Amino acid sequence: MAKAYIVKGKESRVEYGHPWIFRSDISHTDGDITPGDVVDVYSSKNKFLGRGFYNPQSQITIRMLTYEHEEIDHDFLYKRISDAWNYRKQVADVESCRVVFAESDFLPALVVDKFSDILVVQTLALGIDRFKADIVSILDKIIKPRGIYERNDVPVRQLEGLEMQKGFLKGPFDTLVEMTENGVKFLVDVENGQKTGFFLDQKENRAAIAPFVKGVKVLDCFTHTGSFALHAGLFGASSVLGIDISEHAVSCATKNAEINGLASVVKFQAANTFDILREFYDTGETFDTIVLDPPAFTKTKNAVQGAIRGYKEINLRAMKIIKKGGYLITCSCSQHVDSELFMDILYDAAADSRRRVRVVEYRSQAKDHPVLLASPETEYLKCAILQVV
Amino acid sequence: MAKAYIVKGKESRVEYGHPWIFRSDISHTDGDITPGDVVDVYSSKNKFLGRGFYNPQSQITIRMLTYEHEEIDHDFLYKRISDAWNYRKQVADVESCRVVFAESDFLPALVVDKFSDILVVQTLALGIDRFKADIVSILDKIIKPRGIYERNDVPVRQLEGLEMQKGFLKGPFDTLVEMTENGVKFLVDVENGQKTGFFLDQKENRAAIAPFVKGVKVLDCFTHTGSFALHAGLFGASSVLGIDISEHAVSCATKNAEINGLASVVKFQAANTFDILREFYDTGETFDTIVLDPPAFTKTKNAVQGAIRGYKEINLRAMKIIKKGGYLITCSCSQHVDSELFMDILYDAAADSRRRVRVVEYRSQAKDHPVLLASPETEYLKCAILQVV
Repeated sequence: MAKAYIVKGKESRVEYGHPWIFRSDISHTDGDITPGDVVDVYSSKNKFLGRGFYNPQSQITIRMLTYEHEEIDHDFLYKRISDAWNYRKQVADVESCRVVFAESDFLPALVVDKFSDILVVQTLALGIDRFKADIVSILDKIIKPRGIYERNDVPVRQLEGLEMQKGFLKGPFDTLVEMTENGVKFLVDVENGQKTGFFLDQKENRAAIAPFVKGVKVLDCFTHTGSFALHAGLFGASSVLGIDISEHAVSCATKNAEINGLASVVKFQAANTFDILREFYDTGETFDTIVLDPPAFTKTKNAVQGAIRGYKEINLRAMKIIKKGGYLITCSCSQHVDSELFMDILYDAAADSRRRVRVVEYRSQAKDHPVLLASPETEYLKCAILQVV
Repeated sequence: MAKAYIVKGKESRVEYGHPWIFRSDISHTDGDITPGDVVDVYSSKNKFLGRGFYNPQSQITIRMLTYEHEEIDHDFLYKRISDAWNYRKQVADVESCRVVFAESDFLPALVVDKFSDILVVQTLALGIDRFKADIVSILDKIIKPRGIYERNDVPVRQLEGLEMQKGFLKGPFDTLVEMTENGVKFLVDVENGQKTGFFLDQKENRAAIAPFVKGVKVLDCFTHTGSFALHAGLFGASSVLGIDISEHAVSCATKNAEINGLASVVKFQAANTFDILREFYDTGETFDTIVLDPPAFTKTKNAVQGAIRGYKEINLRAMKIIKKGGYLITCSCSQHVDSELFMDILYDAAADSRRRVRVVEYRSQAKDHPVLLASPETEYLKCAILQVV
């Protein structure tokens, strides 16, 4: 097997368990390597550190797989996928869950989501993509899904020299899949929905809103296919308004309200959240509980300042129209806005709104999206439940 | 009413909702003030900022009560205590809960805990202490407890010029109170137990261990009266060992095991946790799940370095004796070790232990201990659920 040597002084990050080795951290390689191959990783002093996929085309040139001298083959993948599945059975309701969360499951760049009896798979780096057939057969054997769909229509694959593609890996089946999350039914569009079709990372946070929506008037901003709004409806809100800028999202959300028998309580409207929050303030409309679950306002470090302004503005506007003693459930999935910065933004918004704000609970991504202690990049979701007094 | 003026430039912290004004932030006062009186607080430019208790003997010279021109009297306290109680009914199981969490409930220095039908009260500053009779009568009216006990035997009261004292405010009754938390019975010694007799802030974290203890071998370090250990037992652990350095704590914990019918599964032993973790490592004894819930290793900023060493050592030792794929539930209640520092310590421990560690969940204090966004001092509890792979 070929070897890659780490630049002197850059080894500790690898030794402590960070799964990525950047091109600039590799001093040289030894032996023939076809892109996507497994290589042995060595320190500058020739100490074995582990094994990983090598792709010279990617900035993340090596993705670590193991710290042992073990073969990377079908059996290895079987063991890792079994471990991932057993972990979900322990910590999650597996009716709908993330089965494999890439680096956090020691399976770099592999994502597998389960919606009822359908699996959706992404292989987002060259090394893991070459094992796609093995992975599909292993998933089929362990989980026995009715169907498996590939959602590799993701630009990030191009950084790895891979094509964008999607389609059935086991099928065909109706790609509008009905699944249940915390008792709420959803139609998940695994063919054309965002990412794999549904954002499972908020599942526990959606369940956590129950005490704050019962019997009251709720506003759900950036509702997408209605996930928080429909939870509020099921948990007994007196009325729920879900807002999304996309007419298509609003139409999906409305369908989801119907299949839950919640159409009379949970309504949706296509609008820009920034505008509509200002409009409510101007007309004096208030809510007991507001949910803010915006898409990532920044995907790069450079755009963080703009993202901070965006988060501050929606939170400030929301705080202003929450009734005394009401609740704000506010999220950020921008990886470059860490939890400390997010809380600072909320502090600034509270100061400007002249409201007294209490943190009832601070939450992160669901347990089926574990965080590698050695890799802060694997943590990205923040969800603060605030009371506005 | 007398007035206190804030030093120019120091007003924003007050305006944004921080409840404490230090002696050094007050430029001067105007009018007669008896220590413990309510004063109006003004900016250097003579703008009304709010009202608070004034005690010249305390470093925290003013404790803010309101930002309105409202009377601080029986009705004011009734409203605040009602709000606090209604909030608990919304977010907590009130069989056992913290009813009032001081500054976080806009009732500075007042703590009220509920254990079954008994309340325990602390009035830890001069201003609020003068209202003790009102507070007792309000609590009696709103909550209708069988008894109320005063636990003002706390040195912090001396900083306020108050005496240490304890005894019945409504009673008498047997001060060994049986209460239930998450289905587990506990005998709470409201007369002689630590603080108010029981640490309610960990209630939700104790419930959260369920998926990680079922059917497995558990070690609970710093078990005190057995709270995590007995939860593990109730949640189906195959065996639980609880460790505490105090023979008295071990005897209470053993009694608690008996009243839950868990004496055959949950055992306790008096030992030093640091020593026993090393002993287990030396003898090769391992556990599936370990709980670390130490007392605060530091109460001052100056002692933080020692606390860091202490936290690192127990976490490192625990990680070394956890079976592959097992769990570490690790807490810190030191206010001066914030969540970022705590996670850094865990990272260092994981690096030294050469184990791969995943963060399954990061938790804080229970929702009946809310955090003031404007006052980081009100957040102190950290609880990380880690998987050691």
